[in-house]
Amino acid sequence: MTVIKESIYEPLTEQTAIELANRLNLFQEGASLTCNEIGDGNLNLVFHIQDTNNKGIIIKQALPYAKVVGESWPLTLLRNKIENEALRVHGQFVPSLVPEVYYTDEELAVTVMEDLSYLQIARRGLIEGKDYPLLSQHIGTYLANTLFFTSDYGMNQQNKKRLAKEFNNPELCKITEDLVFTDPFFNHETNNFEEGLKSFVEELWADEHLKLEVAKLKQKFLTAGEALVHGDLHTGSIFASSTETKVIDPEFAFYGPFGFDIGQFIANLLLNALSLEQDEREKLFNHVEITWNVFSTTFTSLWKTESVEIFSKTNGYLDYVLDQIIEDTIGFAGCELVRRTIGLAHVADLDEISSDDIRIHAKRNALKLGKALITNRKQIRSIEQFVTYIRGVLQHD
Amino acid sequence: MTVIKESIYEPLTEQTAIELANRLNLFQEGASLTCNEIGDGNLNLVFHIQDTNNKGIIIKQALPYAKVVGESWPLTLLRNKIENEALRVHGQFVPSLVPEVYYTDEELAVTVMEDLSYLQIARRGLIEGKDYPLLSQHIGTYLANTLFFTSDYGMNQQNKKRLAKEFNNPELCKITEDLVFTDPFFNHETNNFEEGLKSFVEELWADEHLKLEVAKLKQKFLTAGEALVHGDLHTGSIFASSTETKVIDPEFAFYGPFGFDIGQFIANLLLNALSLEQDEREKLFNHVEITWNVFSTTFTSLWKTESVEIFSKTNGYLDYVLDQIIEDTIGFAGCELVRRTIGLAHVADLDEISSDDIRIHAKRNALKLGKALITNRKQIRSIEQFVTYIRGVLQHD
Repeated sequence: MTVIKESIYEPLTEQTAIELANRLNLFQEGASLTCNEIGDGNLNLVFHIQDTNNKGIIIKQALPYAKVVGESWPLTLLRNKIENEALRVHGQFVPSLVPEVYYTDEELAVTVMEDLSYLQIARRGLIEGKDYPLLSQHIGTYLANTLFFTSDYGMNQQNKKRLAKEFNNPELCKITEDLVFTDPFFNHETNNFEEGLKSFVEELWADEHLKLEVAKLKQKFLTAGEALVHGDLHTGSIFASSTETKVIDPEFAFYGPFGFDIGQFIANLLLNALSLEQDEREKLFNHVEITWNVFSTTFTSLWKTESVEIFSKTNGYLDYVLDQIIEDTIGFAGCELVRRTIGLAHVADLDEISSDDIRIHAKRNALKLGKALITNRKQIRSIEQFVTYIRGVLQHD
Repeated sequence: MTVIKESIYEPLTEQTAIELANRLNLFQEGASLTCNEIGDGNLNLVFHIQDTNNKGIIIKQALPYAKVVGESWPLTLLRNKIENEALRVHGQFVPSLVPEVYYTDEELAVTVMEDLSYLQIARRGLIEGKDYPLLSQHIGTYLANTLFFTSDYGMNQQNKKRLAKEFNNPELCKITEDLVFTDPFFNHETNNFEEGLKSFVEELWADEHLKLEVAKLKQKFLTAGEALVHGDLHTGSIFASSTETKVIDPEFAFYGPFGFDIGQFIANLLLNALSLEQDEREKLFNHVEITWNVFSTTFTSLWKTESVEIFSKTNGYLDYVLDQIIEDTIGFAGCELVRRTIGLAHVADLDEISSDDIRIHAKRNALKLGKALITNRKQIRSIEQFVTYIRGVLQHD
């Protein structure tokens, strides 16, 4: 395939994207192709190319910068390689839950992959009230397989170290270290919150106990190379329908703690729940329970049948590992709730609530719940306790 | 310097080692040089080259295999690069405590460095009864500086990730994972112990609680990328005199837990103590206390003046980190005591005790103490408690 590689990076246009598709022979010869750039233009170009039979492909190209809220800063093109390598690695374990990759070009920072436009971004669907009955079962399966098989339990421990080297991802990790684990807990210029939250936010910044617990979670993120995590597993990184689920955009992938992806996903379910009336929230809480239960059941089953670690047969070790994971999951979920409410990157679930009063109220709940999860994560030892605890925190809502 | 590089690996001889020294102009032109190969031949060639004024250098070359107890297996030559890079990195922070490196050649797997033959290997000196009054102060200083400045507290957190990538060291880590954290706790063919220990060893293999705690420590070794550790910091990796200390042989260096180097060093002091009569042990216990006290005082001072982590000012965070480090230190020390007694690689401190009864008794003590440290590491919260605890375990000696 080297003959068709470009040696110098330049952003594709709709025309050159079609030329690339033709060179790759992904459509019938002579097919008439149309192309639309459908990305948000902040980080990547995303070209949707279709023939007249609506057969499509996606060409995703990293841009050499990131734009967020008007600011622009340089960002490594290598994230495209991280993304397509993560899709390849995770795809070995859960082929039905990630898009198929047809072609990659490191110089162009391009990944050509399966067209998923027949599905909907899960965050958007949840905001519209869709149920996605299989979403949490699929994500629980995705989490258990991708995390187990890239960890010291499911992969040769020397190969795991070699894989970790490939996923050394300092620039993207820094975004998370700053925006998830640091800035929201200090009076930092990247923060972005409404006036009605100010007193809550100032209280949070002054809470030394909370900050100590966040420091511990950040330390875990910085040092615990447990598994190849997706690194940005919110509901905006998931395509879904009532029958299918596909996890996309793993450009933040790196060797991190087991609980990080689980916590981010669960937090984003909770952020959707907080945008709803109290009596509508149970379906999201149900998704939270299923996510953990499918994850832990599948992880347990893999541990018992596939483990390469001789100590996995030692009494109590699996329970210890699962206890660590649920504790971290809860803490990371708490950080995500806080940062999506007052940090740089918000979620539409809360921001699109049109009533000022209801929106501010929901955001205060997000902060209250986030703080509670971070500081009480050691006391919660099962998913049932977790959901009961959440109901308790929100009961005077 | 590329002109003098060899492109193909071949083991040096005393003659070609002298030729290399001449090409590097490390001696006066025309100097008459003598060369002796002084390595043990198991892992590396070590050439000591001197001129007639006794000015010397060391040329260390990795061999493409490892030999232990008659067995030989292939071992990456890249360990020479890891070693000289670790000397370079650590040398930035404690230049007086590591040998100076004059030249390296990756293809030849060669490091040319300072001649330390005027010093003695600390293990040998301790066995001979030397006190080394500054040994623990120097090693405490070495540990605090090398660990702090390569961690997320003392180094830019993105540069730390890039550095961790350079020190990806799967083959050497595997030796530790197997020989320190696994084989001694199972009936494995690499184990090597005397008949008089058999009932003790079988009891240890059957102890599920102990194995669970070892599993947790192994997990930490496998996943906690906290700092660039030496990876093999026993008293045989240290040259010493009454005034000087130099840490050598960091070919096992990788990003691992803070407590690993500290635990291994302390365990090797304790192994020496166990070879002595009860009333002679205090000087070693004193070294243990000084090592930790100098480490923790220096680490604390660096934390307060040099930290790059904003949360380092958060109340309680330093205490939390030091508590984690002492707990891990004690656990890792316990593993080292066990594996040096019944695993593949022993220590002369115990093996050279000529009386069978006294030797077996000392080794039983090492096993008893190792097991106690592994299982009770969470209860010990200060170095004074630690030494008191050790005296308690050994009191009916």
